[in-house]
Amino acid sequence: MMNSQDLITACGNDWAAYTQHEFICQLGNGTLPTKAYLDYLQQDYLFLLHYARAYALQIYKSTSLAQMQEALPSLRGLIEQEIAHHLAYCRAQGLTQQQIEQLREAPGTIAYTRFVLDTGMAADRLALMVAQAPCGLGYGEIGQALHEQSTSGDHPYQDWLDIYCGATFQQDVRQSKVLLDSYLSDVPLHSERGQSLCRIFHTATRMEAAFWQQSLDAAKQLTQLPPSTYPRPDNKPQESA
Amino acid sequence: MMNSQDLITACGNDWAAYTQHEFICQLGNGTLPTKAYLDYLQQDYLFLLHYARAYALQIYKSTSLAQMQEALPSLRGLIEQEIAHHLAYCRAQGLTQQQIEQLREAPGTIAYTRFVLDTGMAADRLALMVAQAPCGLGYGEIGQALHEQSTSGDHPYQDWLDIYCGATFQQDVRQSKVLLDSYLSDVPLHSERGQSLCRIFHTATRMEAAFWQQSLDAAKQLTQLPPSTYPRPDNKPQESA
Amino acid sequence: MMNSQDLITACGNDWAAYTQHEFICQLGNGTLPTKAYLDYLQQDYLFLLHYARAYALQIYKSTSLAQMQEALPSLRGLIEQEIAHHLAYCRAQGLTQQQIEQLREAPGTIAYTRFVLDTGMAADRLALMVAQAPCGLGYGEIGQALHEQSTSGDHPYQDWLDIYCGATFQQDVRQSKVLLDSYLSDVPLHSERGQSLCRIFHTATRMEAAFWQQSLDAAKQLTQLPPSTYPRPDNKPQESA
Amino acid sequence: MMNSQDLITACGNDWAAYTQHEFICQLGNGTLPTKAYLDYLQQDYLFLLHYARAYALQIYKSTSLAQMQEALPSLRGLIEQEIAHHLAYCRAQGLTQQQIEQLREAPGTIAYTRFVLDTGMAADRLALMVAQAPCGLGYGEIGQALHEQSTSGDHPYQDWLDIYCGATFQQDVRQSKVLLDSYLSDVPLHSERGQSLCRIFHTATRMEAAFWQQSLDAAKQLTQLPPSTYPRPDNKPQESA
Repeated sequence: MMNSQDLITACGNDWAAYTQHEFICQLGNGTLPTKAYLDYLQQDYLFLLHYARAYALQIYKSTSLAQMQEALPSLRGLIEQEIAHHLAYCRAQGLTQQQIEQLREAPGTIAYTRFVLDTGMAADRLALMVAQAPCGLGYGEIGQALHEQSTSGDHPYQDWLDIYCGATFQQDVRQSKVLLDSYLSDVPLHSERGQSLCRIFHTATRMEAAFWQQSLDAAKQLTQLPPSTYPRPDNKPQESA
Repeated sequence: MMNSQDLITACGNDWAAYTQHEFICQLGNGTLPTKAYLDYLQQDYLFLLHYARAYALQIYKSTSLAQMQEALPSLRGLIEQEIAHHLAYCRAQGLTQQQIEQLREAPGTIAYTRFVLDTGMAADRLALMVAQAPCGLGYGEIGQALHEQSTSGDHPYQDWLDIYCGATFQQDVRQSKVLLDSYLSDVPLHSERGQSLCRIFHTATRMEAAFWQQSLDAAKQLTQLPPSTYPRPDNKPQESA
Repeated sequence: MMNSQDLITACGNDWAAYTQHEFICQLGNGTLPTKAYLDYLQQDYLFLLHYARAYALQIYKSTSLAQMQEALPSLRGLIEQEIAHHLAYCRAQGLTQQQIEQLREAPGTIAYTRFVLDTGMAADRLALMVAQAPCGLGYGEIGQALHEQSTSGDHPYQDWLDIYCGATFQQDVRQSKVLLDSYLSDVPLHSERGQSLCRIFHTATRMEAAFWQQSLDAAKQLTQLPPSTYPRPDNKPQESA
Repeated sequence: MMNSQDLITACGNDWAAYTQHEFICQLGNGTLPTKAYLDYLQQDYLFLLHYARAYALQIYKSTSLAQMQEALPSLRGLIEQEIAHHLAYCRAQGLTQQQIEQLREAPGTIAYTRFVLDTGMAADRLALMVAQAPCGLGYGEIGQALHEQSTSGDHPYQDWLDIYCGATFQQDVRQSKVLLDSYLSDVPLHSERGQSLCRIFHTATRMEAAFWQQSLDAAKQLTQLPPSTYPRPDNKPQESA
């Protein structure tokens, strides 16, 4: 029988390539360019819309009231709080409502979110939970690792650190891990199904790393462009996902 | 461009066959056999589990935060209140937790719920809303028609009347109708899509009527069976949907 | 680890209630009313359209070329041959193209087909195969049981018997069974997943029996109606099992 | 009412950024590095598996036999011919069966394929067709533009040119375009739905361009790595467009 640590182990070096990614190192020590951070925030706003859809899919895939009750708090939290928070942050950075609605979803954002949703639709509810798991487990681990930096009191990304290093988030992660482990305990690690779950978790983990990389790359490209094209040169026609 | 009345009109006589079904007439004048009512309550409990899944599917199919916010209150209401209410009622009627978990979903319950879910998956979000609509619009109309009976103060099904004739439910129905009409106003009635929506609404309406009929039939069958086999003779192996 | 016989065993008496249903007994000994048979053929035509969708869903849910190749022949057979055959038969019975297109799907047809499709979407590919399995396994068993009747040479439903008692169909059923058993051999019977597959197979089996019953009931109702209402009034929903 | 040209127009410069991408220019004049071509072929093999799933989804989403018959030939062509062709080509380049099975899907491949599948699931059958359309329409346009180069008789990518510049493929594209236009003719361009279809087509087009770019980037990275790491280090995600 398997647990969430088996999923992480199956990723080999790709787990550290995600949780200790250059983007995170720079965010933690405060050297991350503002442009990279803002690109990340915008893409993460689009990401969260689809992540909420994934929790709705968990409820669609539930076979009991208890399973519905498991997924509802996360769905509510995303719709009622987190997405609104990202919107507020983007506005505080000077983005107008129109600019936010015309944000273009970048390939790395689409890759991760749609992988989760399509995997969840094509396979079963547990596979969906596994595809979502690198997000919670990884952010939990990152939050713990950055805990020391978060207490300096004078950090350019204090808001972000407060959320993910904070007790509430860390407690949510622990609960999600217990729940995931209880489902995984019904699956033999070396069965077809167990190996399939490992592959799903591994691919989702690679997509998480690609999501960090995307915002580092976007910042590099932006620095080579005339400032008037901000937030992004290809933002002329319309796109709202 | 079309509205919800066009959907009702397209049902012809089948709309009245649903909203003025013999089951409803007997429920309204208090002559409905207790056995029919209890069969209905049990099947309706199973129905609501899948109806909640349909609202989750609306959220999965949303393309904006606003659309998610539209569907979330109904999803919450079902998971946090209505399903629990049905469970409580069934228990008050003497059903044990084990009997409830072993309830068998009858063909009419499966027909209506899975038609909604499959239609919603195969077509788009508006088609899903239309497949769900006979439930809200029909119960709203029934609640209004039974309003007089509901005030006698001495009715065997007072609980049911209080809910569906009540101001809160009637207000919810009106809001849902306004929302549905705003989506339908983008669709020409005589387009392929408009006609397809009419067919979906019509089939869902027929399934609603079949759902009433099912409980009348179940009560007839039960009266011909030895009392010890209650609630149902074929309840021996396991089934929990 | 489990196999297809475990699924059948889990149905208890409901397996025989399907495979030895009154409809099948009358079909086998030639006493089935023509009206019941024609109602069945029409509903089975609608059934097959959705059954083809279920094989398409198997391909959508495939994770390898080999899995796609497993499901493609059944999908092709349905689209290119069986559905066309039912259409031809209905036409030979005097139904016009317009009457066929306006056929109303009855609750029992919707219940079985949409249960398969929704289960297949909400759970995984194996659950979809299991939901479809009562059809193949049951018709295979029925075909064997009716083999003697099929050779009399003077049977009102010789066409039907030729197909399902025939060597080609029986060979297809054996192959499907081998394939299903190979997938099931990865699943412990008493795991959560194994028990869930048993419940799915059981419910699908009950819906098969309700599908037979539906055509017996329709024939009874038709004999009490003026001939002009043919093929079916259908605004009075009928549902029994 | 709208047609496929409206979809292309709504892409603005992004249509040319896809159909006249640097990858295509180099492929056409024969200067494309072999490593870029081989990376593309491998990722395109993975792409086609999911593209076949999209045609299966079209069949799942069909509401008539005619719609099923529309999508079946493309599904068969992919499963029975094109995917096998890519496999044969990869083997001819020295890849073992094991290497092919362990190929890692890159973010750009996942982004495009899962965007198509998730859009197709969340919206309706026409939206799915629109999400798939940049592939057929774009390759058709590219095949026409490269027709002259294809007749030199001494081209490193003659196989590729033979397929996409060839009469059979060009005829298939024209038929698909006629079919798509017939569906689009039911949709007002400036309706909510029309604008939504434009956004879907635009995003899919951007993902096509990102797919070309991905193989150019992969070739650059490969040249900087020791040969033993072939086919790809892949723990450093690359993403650009």
